[in-house]
Amino acid sequence: MQQSTLVRLKENFELNKSILVVGLPGVGLVGKLVAEHLVDELGAEKIIEVYSPHFPPQVLVNKDCTVRPVSNIIYYAKVKENDVLFLVGDHQSTTSQGHYELCSLYLDIAQKFGVSRIYTLGGYPTGKLTCEDTVLGVANNTKLIEEIKEYGVEFRESEPSGGIVGASGLLVAFSKMRGIDAACLMGMTPGYLMDPKSAQSLLKVLCRIFGIEVNTESLEKKAEEMESILEKLKEKEEQQTIQEVKPTEEDLRYIG
Amino acid sequence: MQQSTLVRLKENFELNKSILVVGLPGVGLVGKLVAEHLVDELGAEKIIEVYSPHFPPQVLVNKDCTVRPVSNIIYYAKVKENDVLFLVGDHQSTTSQGHYELCSLYLDIAQKFGVSRIYTLGGYPTGKLTCEDTVLGVANNTKLIEEIKEYGVEFRESEPSGGIVGASGLLVAFSKMRGIDAACLMGMTPGYLMDPKSAQSLLKVLCRIFGIEVNTESLEKKAEEMESILEKLKEKEEQQTIQEVKPTEEDLRYIG
Amino acid sequence: MQQSTLVRLKENFELNKSILVVGLPGVGLVGKLVAEHLVDELGAEKIIEVYSPHFPPQVLVNKDCTVRPVSNIIYYAKVKENDVLFLVGDHQSTTSQGHYELCSLYLDIAQKFGVSRIYTLGGYPTGKLTCEDTVLGVANNTKLIEEIKEYGVEFRESEPSGGIVGASGLLVAFSKMRGIDAACLMGMTPGYLMDPKSAQSLLKVLCRIFGIEVNTESLEKKAEEMESILEKLKEKEEQQTIQEVKPTEEDLRYIG
Amino acid sequence: MQQSTLVRLKENFELNKSILVVGLPGVGLVGKLVAEHLVDELGAEKIIEVYSPHFPPQVLVNKDCTVRPVSNIIYYAKVKENDVLFLVGDHQSTTSQGHYELCSLYLDIAQKFGVSRIYTLGGYPTGKLTCEDTVLGVANNTKLIEEIKEYGVEFRESEPSGGIVGASGLLVAFSKMRGIDAACLMGMTPGYLMDPKSAQSLLKVLCRIFGIEVNTESLEKKAEEMESILEKLKEKEEQQTIQEVKPTEEDLRYIG
Repeated sequence: MQQSTLVRLKENFELNKSILVVGLPGVGLVGKLVAEHLVDELGAEKIIEVYSPHFPPQVLVNKDCTVRPVSNIIYYAKVKENDVLFLVGDHQSTTSQGHYELCSLYLDIAQKFGVSRIYTLGGYPTGKLTCEDTVLGVANNTKLIEEIKEYGVEFRESEPSGGIVGASGLLVAFSKMRGIDAACLMGMTPGYLMDPKSAQSLLKVLCRIFGIEVNTESLEKKAEEMESILEKLKEKEEQQTIQEVKPTEEDLRYIG
Repeated sequence: MQQSTLVRLKENFELNKSILVVGLPGVGLVGKLVAEHLVDELGAEKIIEVYSPHFPPQVLVNKDCTVRPVSNIIYYAKVKENDVLFLVGDHQSTTSQGHYELCSLYLDIAQKFGVSRIYTLGGYPTGKLTCEDTVLGVANNTKLIEEIKEYGVEFRESEPSGGIVGASGLLVAFSKMRGIDAACLMGMTPGYLMDPKSAQSLLKVLCRIFGIEVNTESLEKKAEEMESILEKLKEKEEQQTIQEVKPTEEDLRYIG
Repeated sequence: MQQSTLVRLKENFELNKSILVVGLPGVGLVGKLVAEHLVDELGAEKIIEVYSPHFPPQVLVNKDCTVRPVSNIIYYAKVKENDVLFLVGDHQSTTSQGHYELCSLYLDIAQKFGVSRIYTLGGYPTGKLTCEDTVLGVANNTKLIEEIKEYGVEFRESEPSGGIVGASGLLVAFSKMRGIDAACLMGMTPGYLMDPKSAQSLLKVLCRIFGIEVNTESLEKKAEEMESILEKLKEKEEQQTIQEVKPTEEDLRYIG
Repeated sequence: MQQSTLVRLKENFELNKSILVVGLPGVGLVGKLVAEHLVDELGAEKIIEVYSPHFPPQVLVNKDCTVRPVSNIIYYAKVKENDVLFLVGDHQSTTSQGHYELCSLYLDIAQKFGVSRIYTLGGYPTGKLTCEDTVLGVANNTKLIEEIKEYGVEFRESEPSGGIVGASGLLVAFSKMRGIDAACLMGMTPGYLMDPKSAQSLLKVLCRIFGIEVNTESLEKKAEEMESILEKLKEKEEQQTIQEVKPTEEDLRYIG
């Protein structure tokens, strides 16, 4: 354990001109779903573990009743000709200052591994129950914006108007000072529940960028399950106008 | 990115006997409106950027969909015979300790640039819907109070009775220990919404102090827009005694 | 007093292959009740005091009107052939970062005293008013799980599903990186009040592990007192359906 | 200004076997009222100013419209044959960790000035509208308890049962580790408003301890004013059973 953030690194690992994909928990878990899906489908290899006092003081229980601390993990995979790192994790920082500290750490790691481009993945909360299939973007330079538009990412003037909170935003903004191109890609989502459908839209764009195709079966299955949960919620809502509607305990397994 | 506060400084920049004007976000955004108006009208030059883990962990989106971190910026302009620095920004510190740390940093910068006088600008919340055209002041020595009275600033015994929270107050109080004259000038404002009208009153006083005149068209336009929003709010209030009144989404563009 | 955590250590104290039992305040005070009961019954000797700015800024008043700071204490006792350390205390950390810091400190101490196994004790909140006599477990490796099962500890797939918050969980997870076997043993408890009955179940398991028997009279007496308080609460609840039920001041002496 | 706590010390000041009296803001402002009254009546001399980022990020406005930072101040006075230091201030720490840090600092100062005894002053909240004239005590050793009883301080088994929060408690508990005798003396008070009457009772005890008499006119006048405010509040309460009662703005000048 540690007072300061602890980084455990697989040694003798060198990369050049690599790409970092960031999918930490956030709105609708869209970014996390996409990045973890790619880690699974590409058989990416774990190379870095990050433990931090800025994470919740909590441990998670595995299926076999062993426990593990909250962590952020970096995986590596060769994606066509590209060396790609995937940053995923259980939680983001619980404190403002921790967000800045961890993002600084991730950019140090990015520089160490010769990262020349970063894609952070997230959800764009619309507050509406049904969403377009759109992926919105922001970036840290206009040349990159022009390039990414080609892949079907939409850029809307001054959007998101409320800014972007957390690692997805900070990494894009601060990577500029380190000379790294970076963009944040956001799937549109109601923002209330885990949204594997929005994740599918975002995954499609990312695969286009990397020039690959991946099996999306597991995401589709999750999307169907969420769809049926939402259907049930809507039915209940119609039945009861006044009573408060709560998802059943089983439904809740899908949240978070 | 950084764990500690990061200062990016234009090199080879030296000043003597300069004046620092501080207009950070606060009550009614009065101080921010005035300082940013002067930066625009005087064509002031950006010389220092400050990024801090004490700001919200958030990025802002520009019109062209590029992003920028939350920051405080110092601009420079020659104002008649005076070298003037303008400190403006997106946010103040989100933590108590950050307020002290950032103010200490700003006073270090002030000393480095030979600042011999500081004016911090702010709003004085009255809680009433209509306000006088008055500008209230406090200062870190009585000689300065006598001098500033000449420009039409009012000084009321022990006012503001609740003290002054944030950078506007701390900079005035702590600059005394560094031998810098400092005053806080406050436009009276209801305190609920952005108040460009109060900003105009405060700007007038500041221009008198600097012996200059500036175009106030843009502030006047903003004031008219706010006026019409307030009119609408009052009308709605008269129509509905019980229903809760909310500004429309369009109205809200003017807040904050 | 201190800004950083202060450790006061009895000097010239060396152990080898020792066991650490952790019973800090938590759900139903189950772990604290068990560990303090063992400290009393075994006549364990105080060897370390820990004071920390992460504890509440508060002092406690002894019976004789002297005061003492909030602390965590480590006691030592020979339990059959084993050297056993007991970590008990008034409070856990009040901050997230403090949890990580203190757990790191406790593992440093554990290594210093050659601890090769850790048992953290806690309560498992069921939210129901009556509970089974079950003790649930998690551990930091599967071999240890198999061993502990022999003593009647139950291991349920992925349980507790919400993870474990605080020192009981962190110590088990992070001790793995230091090569220390560790398990968390949890008595099932409603989780609302101090639960000496659940503590008795947990104590039984722990005694089986150590191969000892201890007098449980004082725990039984506390359990009877709580039982009668709960009876009274239930009676009142039946009498008044609408009125809010509060335990009397006397009852409350038993809480916390 | 400073990131860390700043201590401004009058140089060449040495004491031996001195006494520290602590009256920082707390319940009913009892301790602060007593200590500041003594500072005034004894004409004590300011020798140390403490500024800290653990205080609120705020400045206070003097009668003449100059401002001053929130601070804690130490005054010195010769009281009969004793060298006495008085620690008073605008605020206590706003954070848990700040409480520990500042108390540690105050004990460092105490040791530097050869303090061999500390009295911290406070209020003991009863929650009842009328209070006894009693002064309750706790101390860091039983010998001191016996001594102080002689001056009319009451010691009640395990009281205050909820412990003591803040500097008054921490200073007494932690001074023991530094070999300094310390007691906390508490005037009984309803705890809702400033309580100059309770302060008078506490002052009487303290004067007995120091073997002095001081003019208490100003405290008596404050007590009469509060009495008349309370009378008005009670009258209003009788008139209106349902309406919420608020002290008038004028009344509030006496609070805090």
